[in-house]
Amino acid sequence: MMIVMTPGASTEQIDAVRERLATTGVHVVVMPGELTTAIGAIGDPQGVAELGLEGLPGVDRVVPISRPYKLASSELSHHAPSVFDIAGRTVGGGTTFTLIAGPCTVETRTQTLSVAQAVKEAGASMLRGGAFKPRTSPFAFSGLGVEGLQILAEAREATGLPVVTELLNGVHADAVAEYADVVQIGARNMQNYALLEVAGKLGKPVLLKRGLSSTLDELLMAADYILKEGNERVVLCERGIRTFETATRFTLDLGAVPWLKLHTHLPVIVDPSHAAGDRRLVEPMSRAAAAVGADGIIVEVHEDPEAALCDGPQALYASSFAEYARDVAAHAGLLGKTLA
Amino acid sequence: MMIVMTPGASTEQIDAVRERLATTGVHVVVMPGELTTAIGAIGDPQGVAELGLEGLPGVDRVVPISRPYKLASSELSHHAPSVFDIAGRTVGGGTTFTLIAGPCTVETRTQTLSVAQAVKEAGASMLRGGAFKPRTSPFAFSGLGVEGLQILAEAREATGLPVVTELLNGVHADAVAEYADVVQIGARNMQNYALLEVAGKLGKPVLLKRGLSSTLDELLMAADYILKEGNERVVLCERGIRTFETATRFTLDLGAVPWLKLHTHLPVIVDPSHAAGDRRLVEPMSRAAAAVGADGIIVEVHEDPEAALCDGPQALYASSFAEYARDVAAHAGLLGKTLA
Amino acid sequence: MMIVMTPGASTEQIDAVRERLATTGVHVVVMPGELTTAIGAIGDPQGVAELGLEGLPGVDRVVPISRPYKLASSELSHHAPSVFDIAGRTVGGGTTFTLIAGPCTVETRTQTLSVAQAVKEAGASMLRGGAFKPRTSPFAFSGLGVEGLQILAEAREATGLPVVTELLNGVHADAVAEYADVVQIGARNMQNYALLEVAGKLGKPVLLKRGLSSTLDELLMAADYILKEGNERVVLCERGIRTFETATRFTLDLGAVPWLKLHTHLPVIVDPSHAAGDRRLVEPMSRAAAAVGADGIIVEVHEDPEAALCDGPQALYASSFAEYARDVAAHAGLLGKTLA
Amino acid sequence: MMIVMTPGASTEQIDAVRERLATTGVHVVVMPGELTTAIGAIGDPQGVAELGLEGLPGVDRVVPISRPYKLASSELSHHAPSVFDIAGRTVGGGTTFTLIAGPCTVETRTQTLSVAQAVKEAGASMLRGGAFKPRTSPFAFSGLGVEGLQILAEAREATGLPVVTELLNGVHADAVAEYADVVQIGARNMQNYALLEVAGKLGKPVLLKRGLSSTLDELLMAADYILKEGNERVVLCERGIRTFETATRFTLDLGAVPWLKLHTHLPVIVDPSHAAGDRRLVEPMSRAAAAVGADGIIVEVHEDPEAALCDGPQALYASSFAEYARDVAAHAGLLGKTLA
Repeated sequence: MMIVMTPGASTEQIDAVRERLATTGVHVVVMPGELTTAIGAIGDPQGVAELGLEGLPGVDRVVPISRPYKLASSELSHHAPSVFDIAGRTVGGGTTFTLIAGPCTVETRTQTLSVAQAVKEAGASMLRGGAFKPRTSPFAFSGLGVEGLQILAEAREATGLPVVTELLNGVHADAVAEYADVVQIGARNMQNYALLEVAGKLGKPVLLKRGLSSTLDELLMAADYILKEGNERVVLCERGIRTFETATRFTLDLGAVPWLKLHTHLPVIVDPSHAAGDRRLVEPMSRAAAAVGADGIIVEVHEDPEAALCDGPQALYASSFAEYARDVAAHAGLLGKTLA
Repeated sequence: MMIVMTPGASTEQIDAVRERLATTGVHVVVMPGELTTAIGAIGDPQGVAELGLEGLPGVDRVVPISRPYKLASSELSHHAPSVFDIAGRTVGGGTTFTLIAGPCTVETRTQTLSVAQAVKEAGASMLRGGAFKPRTSPFAFSGLGVEGLQILAEAREATGLPVVTELLNGVHADAVAEYADVVQIGARNMQNYALLEVAGKLGKPVLLKRGLSSTLDELLMAADYILKEGNERVVLCERGIRTFETATRFTLDLGAVPWLKLHTHLPVIVDPSHAAGDRRLVEPMSRAAAAVGADGIIVEVHEDPEAALCDGPQALYASSFAEYARDVAAHAGLLGKTLA
Repeated sequence: MMIVMTPGASTEQIDAVRERLATTGVHVVVMPGELTTAIGAIGDPQGVAELGLEGLPGVDRVVPISRPYKLASSELSHHAPSVFDIAGRTVGGGTTFTLIAGPCTVETRTQTLSVAQAVKEAGASMLRGGAFKPRTSPFAFSGLGVEGLQILAEAREATGLPVVTELLNGVHADAVAEYADVVQIGARNMQNYALLEVAGKLGKPVLLKRGLSSTLDELLMAADYILKEGNERVVLCERGIRTFETATRFTLDLGAVPWLKLHTHLPVIVDPSHAAGDRRLVEPMSRAAAAVGADGIIVEVHEDPEAALCDGPQALYASSFAEYARDVAAHAGLLGKTLA
Repeated sequence: MMIVMTPGASTEQIDAVRERLATTGVHVVVMPGELTTAIGAIGDPQGVAELGLEGLPGVDRVVPISRPYKLASSELSHHAPSVFDIAGRTVGGGTTFTLIAGPCTVETRTQTLSVAQAVKEAGASMLRGGAFKPRTSPFAFSGLGVEGLQILAEAREATGLPVVTELLNGVHADAVAEYADVVQIGARNMQNYALLEVAGKLGKPVLLKRGLSSTLDELLMAADYILKEGNERVVLCERGIRTFETATRFTLDLGAVPWLKLHTHLPVIVDPSHAAGDRRLVEPMSRAAAAVGADGIIVEVHEDPEAALCDGPQALYASSFAEYARDVAAHAGLLGKTLA
């Protein structure tokens, strides 16, 4: 940590900071500048942060030197990108592209099996589908629950596609773990630390979506919550952040992908559907996700989007999904990747 | 709902929208304009929203006419502001100002009793304190748990102040309900709908903090989740939103208070501590909260902020809290309010 | 426009709105709903907006039906994408990709000629370079001025590349028009309407950058300012918006590109350099811009970025620019485009 | 400046940074930490910033130690708040509150004189009014120009109130300086550096509005542009920033006021009208501005807001302005201030 004093800080104030730092055992370097004195504190950033030095007289700011995440850091923990297997598919590592597709919500057995078959034939790597849905309004459809999980499992039987589904609440953890191949943590729960710990302990790969107002540092700190449970198979997902722009539902932050590639070893995929909120934007944004270097995409597909119970306007038509998959795969192919 | 067609929409496209609307039983009014045709759909906005018309050819946008919350609406549900009793204090209604103060976290019995005594003497209405703490980093102190709740209860015994504490996880619901007078839902859980329903069923007043990237419409929809459980004692809390400005930790949206007063009957309080992140800003922002018409404030106070385990730099000194309370109360007094 | 009344609006209040609308000659349709009455006003949205109905008793909101831009609208003005010639290069229209490259600032004659030669050989379509630079701090280097323009003209002579440079201030308009092939309006001036009108009158193509907190609707309204001067050659440029995320300098809003393609006939290019602020992110973001369907890219290149007077960390190395151009062109090629 | 290396930076990379720093003559301190080496560079932050070290191999980030503004800094330039006279009114300094009121736009002579009289009688300190108006749409009313300035001057004659009006374009500088007592720079021009320099040279006090997506650091850097012309009478104005929240037109950042009071000696006022966009919110937000410690308010008032050519819904009624002024002054009074 570096403690920056105000220009007018007195020697006594500087000494007071130095003394408090000394209590934590860190190495202290005082750097008197022309205008401002800065004090470097080397070692134990957590300990220094907890001193709360920002409140001391003469202190202007406390600036962290180290980044705040550890296990997710490519610099501290892994020096090569993580590559792992999910039910026979290779995720991460730069040679595969994981195309996860399926309905927003499992509505019926027929609908789910039919979409699963369509995305399988188009080359998708995994099947997505929601059994428990978070809804902004308490009066909207909130999913089939365990029955939805069973339908997803049946679709896996039929197609061989591993199943990705959201864990919304710790009380469903066992059921989700029983049926799912990948446990998704939704954007609204990215900082629900209790749920992250539960997910970390299930022994299943976890797909962690970025919170809609979470910084990338916070995303990696949230990944640390899962990784510290000993679960190494964590996949990050950029899905759009909330900004002043409302032309699209959220602002898809594709620059986050190469930034994350610099700072974490974890695979990174993109969800273009929720950010777009409009299917006409989903295909271009998916091509861009492949071109920017994402390890995959998670996208919503429906046989009859106009009849969908949830987020129909952003769902791709199952009938044109094969063409979509081909176009996206072509961009991934330029980076040397094939569909997982 | 109003469906706005693109300028080039064909008669067939307009008819297709009309026909889909007809299936929901709403009354349909077609308004052909110079450039654009708009189609009004009167009745059952939820049903129309679920049609997903945004995806149909020729449709530009679907614009809601009604606001999306119901039970929290001052226009639909209550025509007068809600006023209710919390352990002998009157909250809401324009004649009282609820000053809730205490430490960020319960650290020790001594610290908690001592702060409780100080805020009580300064005229505070209730005692706040965290027993379970959400922490961004998995390696930081996360609270004393049930022992913290017991200490808070002891502080209530000693001072008579009702206790406000956060419910972080459904598994602690019974413990929190046993010891707390007001159950707080934190900003990160504002859209944790499962937790909102749990909180709604406990029979205790709920203090609902605005999510750090939640719109006011979403705050009121979250309140609906609690209200629909039959719990009428919900207090809203503005605590700062995430914006591009990082000079303060969050941007306190004080304009939200009079906006909420126009649109909801629920009491609205302000948390200036978390938005400021710096105690030197807390007093001015507290005065402003009183002046803008809030029904109260929830603020962090510590005997020795430099030694606090959590958020010390934003905690007020217990030794100067009486002066602070007097200043804030003077502004509330200009609006005809006295400390609850 | 649609005027939405509050749920409790009285008949008198509804009538008052109707009467004020009548004064503008628009056609009025009253739609009484279950909860809320909406009043459609058909025709003359500008006239209705100027009534300021939001302030009338019983009015909840005034919702525009038509979009607020006209000349830039693909729906109102052109039904096909605009395609035009800039000094022999075809811009827009889906068959070409315009790669504009060069230094942030013209520093010296040698530097500029050398970079111009490098980008020319790599296949760039145009040369960019700043002669007048807006700088956040009044104490930083602000460009060579007219001498910089002359150096750019000399580089055009040497390479045949048309020159793109920024017009920062109306007083330089004649000088910029004399030397430049394309006049750039920077992000900070997107709503400097006086400058937009000056630029519109110069008879040169205009490259209009999105303001860093401007909505896409506002970008198109700004384009209208130029288009109404009779200048049809306007190119829009997405360059990143300001959001809470500071990991990258700005958040590049690539979803804006396909959205703009739906709503305007104007060509759209992307500036990845300023959003990234870090050259390691520029190539992936450039590939994504090509894949998402942009008509081109404007990017900063320097022979020796470590010695650049301005924005060195985001400049690509001239020595590796050919490889960069090849990679980006490959993604554009999948969409059927070749370098202009 | 502090240069933070990546955890894996090599000794050679650290040396390379040290050598480049040495070229600027700054004093260099290398601080090897457990995970990360940090390098302090003491002296000449501008010179170090221009090295562009962020692009060098092994460099993670470059973190400024000093704040980027100088003349506006309370820590570097003035150790006491600036207090100055504007046409007989004292601005700044903690004993006066400057209430600036008047119409958004000068529409007619009669309207302007009438409003001026009303606000004068209610105790206003100065008269505001726009002669040149920036309008988002090129088809909207853009002010009376010089005729508007003359009307304002006549209103000053009649009431004795100094006149505040916006300078929108350098070509009007002489006219504005001739008629105005305070030259306003609008939010959209906060980073129009050419205009700031023009304004700085006019010899008139300048009211500088915060850009709608400008940080407070940037506001103070913009003030430096004016101050460096030798003009010491600069008043800052918080007027709301653009955020994701659209319930209010902008988000008024009242926490900015006490933050600015800590970091600059310049007076700070608040414009509640443009942020609110709805007159029902203007009075509460004005009271809050007084309570938070602002040195004044600039607010829009109209005799007949429903007939206003510009921003009618946010204008206060002239008929109730006296009551408004009394309420706001009461809150300022609690801080020891009387109307200027």
